[in-house]
Amino acid sequence: MPASATGPDPSPRRTDGPPRTRSWWGWGHADAHPSDAECVALGALLPGTLARPLPVPRVTDLRLPRPALAPPASLAHLVREDPADRAGHALGRAYRDIARALRGELGRVPDLVARPTDAADVTRLLDWAGGHGVAVIPFGGGTSVVGGVEYRGDTHRAVLSLDMTAMGRVLEVDPVSRSARIQAGALGPDLERQLRPHGLTLRHFPQSFEFSTLGGWLATRAGGHYATVHTHIDDFVQSLGVVTPTGTSTSWRLPASGAGPSPDRLFLGSEGTLGVITEAWMRLQDRPRHRASTSVSFGEFPRALEAVRALAQSGLNPANCRLLDPGEALLSGASRDGSAVLVLGFESSAGPVDDLLASALDLARAHGGRTADPTAGDAARGSGTDEAVGAWRAAFLRMPYLRDGLARMGAVVDTFETAATWDRIPELIDAVRTEVAAAAREATGHEATINCRLTHVYPDGAAPYFTVAVAGRPGAETAVWDEIKAAAGEVLHRHGATVTHHHAVGRDHRPGYDRQRPEPFARALRAVKDTLDPHGILNPGVLLD
Amino acid sequence: MPASATGPDPSPRRTDGPPRTRSWWGWGHADAHPSDAECVALGALLPGTLARPLPVPRVTDLRLPRPALAPPASLAHLVREDPADRAGHALGRAYRDIARALRGELGRVPDLVARPTDAADVTRLLDWAGGHGVAVIPFGGGTSVVGGVEYRGDTHRAVLSLDMTAMGRVLEVDPVSRSARIQAGALGPDLERQLRPHGLTLRHFPQSFEFSTLGGWLATRAGGHYATVHTHIDDFVQSLGVVTPTGTSTSWRLPASGAGPSPDRLFLGSEGTLGVITEAWMRLQDRPRHRASTSVSFGEFPRALEAVRALAQSGLNPANCRLLDPGEALLSGASRDGSAVLVLGFESSAGPVDDLLASALDLARAHGGRTADPTAGDAARGSGTDEAVGAWRAAFLRMPYLRDGLARMGAVVDTFETAATWDRIPELIDAVRTEVAAAAREATGHEATINCRLTHVYPDGAAPYFTVAVAGRPGAETAVWDEIKAAAGEVLHRHGATVTHHHAVGRDHRPGYDRQRPEPFARALRAVKDTLDPHGILNPGVLLD
Repeated sequence: MPASATGPDPSPRRTDGPPRTRSWWGWGHADAHPSDAECVALGALLPGTLARPLPVPRVTDLRLPRPALAPPASLAHLVREDPADRAGHALGRAYRDIARALRGELGRVPDLVARPTDAADVTRLLDWAGGHGVAVIPFGGGTSVVGGVEYRGDTHRAVLSLDMTAMGRVLEVDPVSRSARIQAGALGPDLERQLRPHGLTLRHFPQSFEFSTLGGWLATRAGGHYATVHTHIDDFVQSLGVVTPTGTSTSWRLPASGAGPSPDRLFLGSEGTLGVITEAWMRLQDRPRHRASTSVSFGEFPRALEAVRALAQSGLNPANCRLLDPGEALLSGASRDGSAVLVLGFESSAGPVDDLLASALDLARAHGGRTADPTAGDAARGSGTDEAVGAWRAAFLRMPYLRDGLARMGAVVDTFETAATWDRIPELIDAVRTEVAAAAREATGHEATINCRLTHVYPDGAAPYFTVAVAGRPGAETAVWDEIKAAAGEVLHRHGATVTHHHAVGRDHRPGYDRQRPEPFARALRAVKDTLDPHGILNPGVLLD
Repeated sequence: MPASATGPDPSPRRTDGPPRTRSWWGWGHADAHPSDAECVALGALLPGTLARPLPVPRVTDLRLPRPALAPPASLAHLVREDPADRAGHALGRAYRDIARALRGELGRVPDLVARPTDAADVTRLLDWAGGHGVAVIPFGGGTSVVGGVEYRGDTHRAVLSLDMTAMGRVLEVDPVSRSARIQAGALGPDLERQLRPHGLTLRHFPQSFEFSTLGGWLATRAGGHYATVHTHIDDFVQSLGVVTPTGTSTSWRLPASGAGPSPDRLFLGSEGTLGVITEAWMRLQDRPRHRASTSVSFGEFPRALEAVRALAQSGLNPANCRLLDPGEALLSGASRDGSAVLVLGFESSAGPVDDLLASALDLARAHGGRTADPTAGDAARGSGTDEAVGAWRAAFLRMPYLRDGLARMGAVVDTFETAATWDRIPELIDAVRTEVAAAAREATGHEATINCRLTHVYPDGAAPYFTVAVAGRPGAETAVWDEIKAAAGEVLHRHGATVTHHHAVGRDHRPGYDRQRPEPFARALRAVKDTLDPHGILNPGVLLD
């Protein structure tokens, strides 16, 4: 569930300590998963869930078939086929994937996992795959929540998961132009660690930061740190290197250009269907030295929406401007009195930001907001946080682990997100609450919890992010989620809200995407696909059939 | 020569007074052209030019052939074929076009000029053209400086200029989301006039503002008002309506989306080759109420470049940050002592910007800048301008007219622009000066004047804009310019500087564009073209063969 983080740079404390084991089936680190007892406690929060948790799944129980194809000797050193590696590359990390893993329903597991070490390796692997009818699924950190890294179907002879994480280096740094050439397989913390000695940062912190890669962010147009102005990774791209099955595309390093349609913008969001992004020159920033953040509470959510719109249109451009509805605020501990909470933050490498925060607070108060401390003391004193901010941040990073714990209790719990213009936002949020709650009730017989926050805001609209939790029907959890998600898709479509603001399309969002995408553009994309990937081996089923 | 304007919104005083006549061959209004005496005075500034001006060309001297084809009766009401209309749509407004018009060398003049009144008209015209081998050249204000609106070649039976200016209305305004649905043929002043009652503005002010259209800006990715952050029109697009020969593409109104590659970004910069942009929902802003601007002079240009880089990387985001080299500053009257001049301005609808200007001036002074008034008095008092700013602005808007006057004196005078990362900027500017001067000397035997300014700046680079003026070889002016331009193209290519930052590709930039564009992207674009425009009628020769 990529989403923008809040507050201070999360990277420093994430690179400490010995290497930890990634879970092959659940979110993040295996040792961070809730214990059985914690799962039971979580389940107690949602009436109708199981009495005891589903067992943690084991690779040995999967009985994977042997790979359908062996790699040629010349590529064998890049390829692995052991069951744990294959199982760990079979699915993304949406709730749906977790639920399937818990039931042992992985679908078609990749036959092979390849780890190229440079662009030439990628070319060789694509050449071989193209000649042998092998589907290639580009794989960064594997945190897709839209079915972006799994194979569905049976038209390919074999499936190769192309794990890019052996390409994780910062290759060049240009301090004058504040930019760096970075390999696509760099995980967030590794990338930031390599930039730190130069005093520079990419400052792109999706919720998945620790477990996702630059290439994954680029291929999916990930949403990052900023609540305003530069929200998606797109704007930080100076140039891209992309290996397609029919040649390598290398765009020029440019701060801006008006030479025809942007080549980079065709590959940004292409989700591994047109080529494999192998590296990028990225625009960096000086590390922020000044921060101020605080929270504002609102008795009425509609007034909070008005406040956030005023802020988004004010030109103040807060780095963080995240509105939590009462349920979201309660869940995260940011508020216990039924208020909506606005988490507000400013950052700068240039100078103090207290005046900006003060102006933002004035605006928020003019719309009925109550500040935690009427003098905005914490921010003014430069501590840069308050209790609600800290509580929310901790909960935010822990959330995917808790989701997996709830899944083990038979709960159906996931998120979906969108964006729409301001004129539609209040009605959209109301409709989602009503109609998704009805769909969840219909599907399960239980009452669902539906929370909403705004993750990114724009002068002309906002990106609402919804969390749904409800006790599932044992054994039919994925069907329940599919019914809920279909209802959500209908509401979004009816309100002209995008099928995704920053989670990408993958395979799960295809119905909504196909309706949203202009028909001539669909044909254009098809033509590009046929030209760059004539054998149709790249991430089949994503974006296009 | 689109480029960003400076200082206050230029629109109000441009919509006053009775309608004026557009020149069919030169820049802007016919009544604003320099008189013969003024032309002589201009020529005296450039040794080697003619003793008296070339005559103003007359349509009646052109002896245009009859149109090769008549429109069908059902479309006849949209189409004109009188010589003045056809001649006025034959060329753009680069120096090269002016020189050709002065010599009566218009090339192939369009057979017909059509003025659709809605998207359905556009569809009908494209249908007819596709069935009859008629090339269609979308035409906004006709201010292309890259051969973007003329037909070259002979593979089409006839040529239709598709003049969009009968579609100039603001159709809807959404004040909540601060956005408006605007027809593509709206000229800058007309568009702003319709938005003004709503307190809103698009704030996109290219140098051609008065004579160019929204559709032209979108199709060419025009550079606008801002020196920083949102420099191109691209970022202000909420959605596009595009009529292609095989169907209409209408994207959803969204503040942001991560659903696949952006459909809008494929049409932005497509320069009329993939479809005809008929309307767009555009992001608007509140009209700025606070302004502060001033100028800073620098004894050494390299230090000025360092100052501008520091400003571009400071996060202060000035609305205007235009560095004039000593020649440019002298020419415009912004400085008479051989200094480089930085024109610096801030604007806001929210609150005073004097503190921002003060911070920017501190930074400029730290890099050796001298402020016009050490206390930044004008800005601090809110008058929002100083003498150098005003002088430069007046000269800026008058410049294309003076260029045409010089052209009548046999001078070769035009501009070209680019963008590159900061690490390359100083060397690039030096190399352009040296090598373009040598090429001009070689081509003419005269010394050229070469001036440079930075029009837009980014944290990772800048957009230098060059002006070249030299006495031509009588009768061979366009050949001289082609030699100069070819030399410039070589320098840009060698330094990895884009063939255009905001003037587009058209036909004139094809050699540089073809070298710059990644080869797989060229094939992708070709495939899109073949899909959307299977008869190859749309703006043939632009971007693609």
